[in-house]
Amino acid sequence: MNGRPLPPSRDLRLVHVDARERQSVVSLRPGGPSFGGEELAICAGPCAIESREQIVATAAAVARAGANVLRGGAFKPRTSPYSFQGLGREGLAMMREAADLYGLAVVTEVLDPRDADVVAESAEMLQIGARNMQNTALLRAVGETGKPVLLKRGLAATVDEWLLAAEYIALTGNERIVLCERGVRSFDPATRNLLDLSVVPLLARRTHLPAIVDPSHGTGVAGLVAAMGLAAVAAGAAGIMVEVHPDPASAVSDGMQSLTFAEFDTFMESMPAVAAAVGRRLPQRFAGVPLNAIPPS
Amino acid sequence: MNGRPLPPSRDLRLVHVDARERQSVVSLRPGGPSFGGEELAICAGPCAIESREQIVATAAAVARAGANVLRGGAFKPRTSPYSFQGLGREGLAMMREAADLYGLAVVTEVLDPRDADVVAESAEMLQIGARNMQNTALLRAVGETGKPVLLKRGLAATVDEWLLAAEYIALTGNERIVLCERGVRSFDPATRNLLDLSVVPLLARRTHLPAIVDPSHGTGVAGLVAAMGLAAVAAGAAGIMVEVHPDPASAVSDGMQSLTFAEFDTFMESMPAVAAAVGRRLPQRFAGVPLNAIPPS
Amino acid sequence: MNGRPLPPSRDLRLVHVDARERQSVVSLRPGGPSFGGEELAICAGPCAIESREQIVATAAAVARAGANVLRGGAFKPRTSPYSFQGLGREGLAMMREAADLYGLAVVTEVLDPRDADVVAESAEMLQIGARNMQNTALLRAVGETGKPVLLKRGLAATVDEWLLAAEYIALTGNERIVLCERGVRSFDPATRNLLDLSVVPLLARRTHLPAIVDPSHGTGVAGLVAAMGLAAVAAGAAGIMVEVHPDPASAVSDGMQSLTFAEFDTFMESMPAVAAAVGRRLPQRFAGVPLNAIPPS
Amino acid sequence: MNGRPLPPSRDLRLVHVDARERQSVVSLRPGGPSFGGEELAICAGPCAIESREQIVATAAAVARAGANVLRGGAFKPRTSPYSFQGLGREGLAMMREAADLYGLAVVTEVLDPRDADVVAESAEMLQIGARNMQNTALLRAVGETGKPVLLKRGLAATVDEWLLAAEYIALTGNERIVLCERGVRSFDPATRNLLDLSVVPLLARRTHLPAIVDPSHGTGVAGLVAAMGLAAVAAGAAGIMVEVHPDPASAVSDGMQSLTFAEFDTFMESMPAVAAAVGRRLPQRFAGVPLNAIPPS
Repeated sequence: MNGRPLPPSRDLRLVHVDARERQSVVSLRPGGPSFGGEELAICAGPCAIESREQIVATAAAVARAGANVLRGGAFKPRTSPYSFQGLGREGLAMMREAADLYGLAVVTEVLDPRDADVVAESAEMLQIGARNMQNTALLRAVGETGKPVLLKRGLAATVDEWLLAAEYIALTGNERIVLCERGVRSFDPATRNLLDLSVVPLLARRTHLPAIVDPSHGTGVAGLVAAMGLAAVAAGAAGIMVEVHPDPASAVSDGMQSLTFAEFDTFMESMPAVAAAVGRRLPQRFAGVPLNAIPPS
Repeated sequence: MNGRPLPPSRDLRLVHVDARERQSVVSLRPGGPSFGGEELAICAGPCAIESREQIVATAAAVARAGANVLRGGAFKPRTSPYSFQGLGREGLAMMREAADLYGLAVVTEVLDPRDADVVAESAEMLQIGARNMQNTALLRAVGETGKPVLLKRGLAATVDEWLLAAEYIALTGNERIVLCERGVRSFDPATRNLLDLSVVPLLARRTHLPAIVDPSHGTGVAGLVAAMGLAAVAAGAAGIMVEVHPDPASAVSDGMQSLTFAEFDTFMESMPAVAAAVGRRLPQRFAGVPLNAIPPS
Repeated sequence: MNGRPLPPSRDLRLVHVDARERQSVVSLRPGGPSFGGEELAICAGPCAIESREQIVATAAAVARAGANVLRGGAFKPRTSPYSFQGLGREGLAMMREAADLYGLAVVTEVLDPRDADVVAESAEMLQIGARNMQNTALLRAVGETGKPVLLKRGLAATVDEWLLAAEYIALTGNERIVLCERGVRSFDPATRNLLDLSVVPLLARRTHLPAIVDPSHGTGVAGLVAAMGLAAVAAGAAGIMVEVHPDPASAVSDGMQSLTFAEFDTFMESMPAVAAAVGRRLPQRFAGVPLNAIPPS
Repeated sequence: MNGRPLPPSRDLRLVHVDARERQSVVSLRPGGPSFGGEELAICAGPCAIESREQIVATAAAVARAGANVLRGGAFKPRTSPYSFQGLGREGLAMMREAADLYGLAVVTEVLDPRDADVVAESAEMLQIGARNMQNTALLRAVGETGKPVLLKRGLAATVDEWLLAAEYIALTGNERIVLCERGVRSFDPATRNLLDLSVVPLLARRTHLPAIVDPSHGTGVAGLVAAMGLAAVAAGAAGIMVEVHPDPASAVSDGMQSLTFAEFDTFMESMPAVAAAVGRRLPQRFAGVPLNAIPPS
């Protein structure tokens, strides 16, 4: 171990353009959230969509605090088959409605290549989760929808393996890919995962694709999320993804790492100064009444 | 870190019976190879099926050396999209033919839930690779074929996560599952992966499912395969999976870790004494002429 | 792995006071550099002291850019016995002179308990390196000098093990301890180590001791140092430690991760805005002529 | 990650002779235990020497079961300063007496370079523990005693780093070095460490020094020790080191991983067949009365 980093894989043909020459900006809709520009992308929401009330309340809270993308799982990848597997299509519809009420875009995970088209109808951005980073059938199916893709890093994936997974997507003709660091496996049980922020500047030297950071999964501890979110922005991340829940203690999954509405609000208030220090700015907060109120079903 | 192991997950409802109370035996066909009994399962063959000649020659060589299951990839999970992705259905047919000629069963990997039924028609056993250990759509699709499943451990999967992946399969009603240790991620570049043999006795205390070991992927170095194969059997493994290639230097993948026919032969000659020392025995070697010779296509 | 962090060790009797209740400030001399207050500690200098010219030039450059502590190794812990082992006492004297010329304090490593007193005569702060984090004889010897101690995290040390090492020092009656995160072992050869910034907010919840970050060892790649230094400050670090060398390409050790004078200068110019965003400020830059010029020997 | 192992360090000048060309045999005394020959070295005993009764009873039990080296800690490297630190010189004397009664050699750890000579007076072999593998002052001091050295692998040491630590010892003129694999850090809490048996055949290709395996620390679970001890011998280890205690449940340290006398006896009965399968044999069991009975103090 002489500390000399290996050269990047020569198979990075599409995604390997130094971001300092050409930084891609992945836009979710005209005038809407984008990744890689001056404005940060702030993705927030619950781990899983649990009910219409839960997702609407969370959408309202995060939009008012300054988020511009609603995250939330309808198809959930769970370690145990007995854990809550998500509300599926019904959850997608709830999430779409909630997002529309507060002017948010939607990012949500796809687990099965046969679901890619259905999810693409309801979401501006499709997520590949950490467990599926090298699920090549899924990478291709999601790429082929033509929608922007959020590609999370695998639990023990090297940067090269991660970029090669992006290359699988890019080969479908779809280069609207955003990378998301969410922590890797570690020997220390003090945190759930080990958030590897050094990939933020490293990726900027290896790819034109923007990268964001998920400090919620990356630490697994709500009390560490704000500090690591600020650090991610200082390191140059194009955005963050944060779990927020109306009542973390009663969440069906990942409660320990979810912020309350008040915690998320405080966190968002600390962001603009750090963002400005590195030449970035926050999205505008949603103000006013829901855009498209519809009666509850 | 006080070294106290955590208790196993309470969600191991189907697969969690102590093997010392009830050790499952997974049989591939009547009178044929089985996993978990007195006779070891010896799975051998190339990383990828490259041609009819290659797979037939390898089948002959490994059967004569004492293997009873032919391994080989027709659908290959590759880190890079530019690497050889396998011969697909054509490869499956070549492998089936080669196995039948020499009385071998077939184990091969499935990458896409939509391929599970097709592969099940050609193989006695379906493999879930390390990269897909938590691909729940695939776990369910493969389980539903009713065929025996070889479930490789994920690159950084804990034993509990691995057993919960097996539980996903078992919940389809199919408990004919064999676990395969193939090495985990490590900090030491001296080997490709770190082969974790301690899971062999550990699994025996946590599950009734048999477990085998793949020292080829587990080390990534041909010169270490034989010693680790012997160690696996001494630790109590129900079998081994070894990469063998007619000409490792020209293999399209994994050549560095593949044994030549002569190396595999020498290795197999060293096995019976170790197997006997722990109460196991080797399958009979194939002797004589091909069983079902058909003219080359 | 349910993501629930373990409670901290109950053996953290001296060092375990939540920093939000009482944050220790470790001061190196009256009015001089301190760790844990509003002003950041900026430790900079070469990996190893190579010559009087090298260390004097570096001291001048880092002091003028805003560092307040000179780092540099006189006794070097090297993986290979054939690598440069440092200039020893002669190096200490050179470093002391260079620091005095530019108003800097000195931090340098001790490798042998029998050297603790000698090093304590030349340095304001004694460093325990990562390889010796659990060298209990050294922890006690360094603690007993009564001097401030910089305790680097071991290559694969958990936070609890690290704090228990600090407890060994504290038990000598010396609680002037500063923790330094410098990266842990990882599976990804893209960086030399994996910088674990999440320990910064985590330590703040477990100990009153201040913590700094070494992005040079933490990444091993000069091009990543500035981004990770900014991230460390945003995460709440009390300071940073950075390798700077007049000519990294010709450095006898760690050249790949060392900044040039110009790179360090640029980095320091980007710091005040981030520091201010989290309520911290930089030390004053050294301006003017050397304080105590003595003719070269 | 292309799986291609790195070439070994070019700084392995003394210890890097392929064992297949010249396998060193490290002998503890004429006609006594040796490492690297046909006869295995079986090192057994408690984690820590707790009392004269405990160490004498254990020496008797392990000698009668077939061990030829007594292990036990008088100077204990403990993670917490509040844990039992060992009986020191008094413990050394107890251990010496117990070993002499039953014809055993003694291996015990040195923690401080200032203790090397004292320990060398009481023990045939000096141990460098995992936490001190890169404590170069200690490596030199222990090497300079001229006694055989047991060098345990660091918690996250690569094979190259480990061999370079051996090179530090060899440079003192003392090449009587035995390497001991004792598990490395892992992400899976199911075991205390991850026992890396692949180093056994790997070391045989990189060094002439013999290597043994410690399955007690390597797994941290008593129930896994026997299987992993057999696997170590099958992989080619020159011996094993096992923790044995009269009453593991009341041990002051490492009780969870210690075997009872009966468990050790059963384990040793399973060894000869595996040893014979790989061309090795066990030492003779001690039979008869204590050699040098002295009245208890």
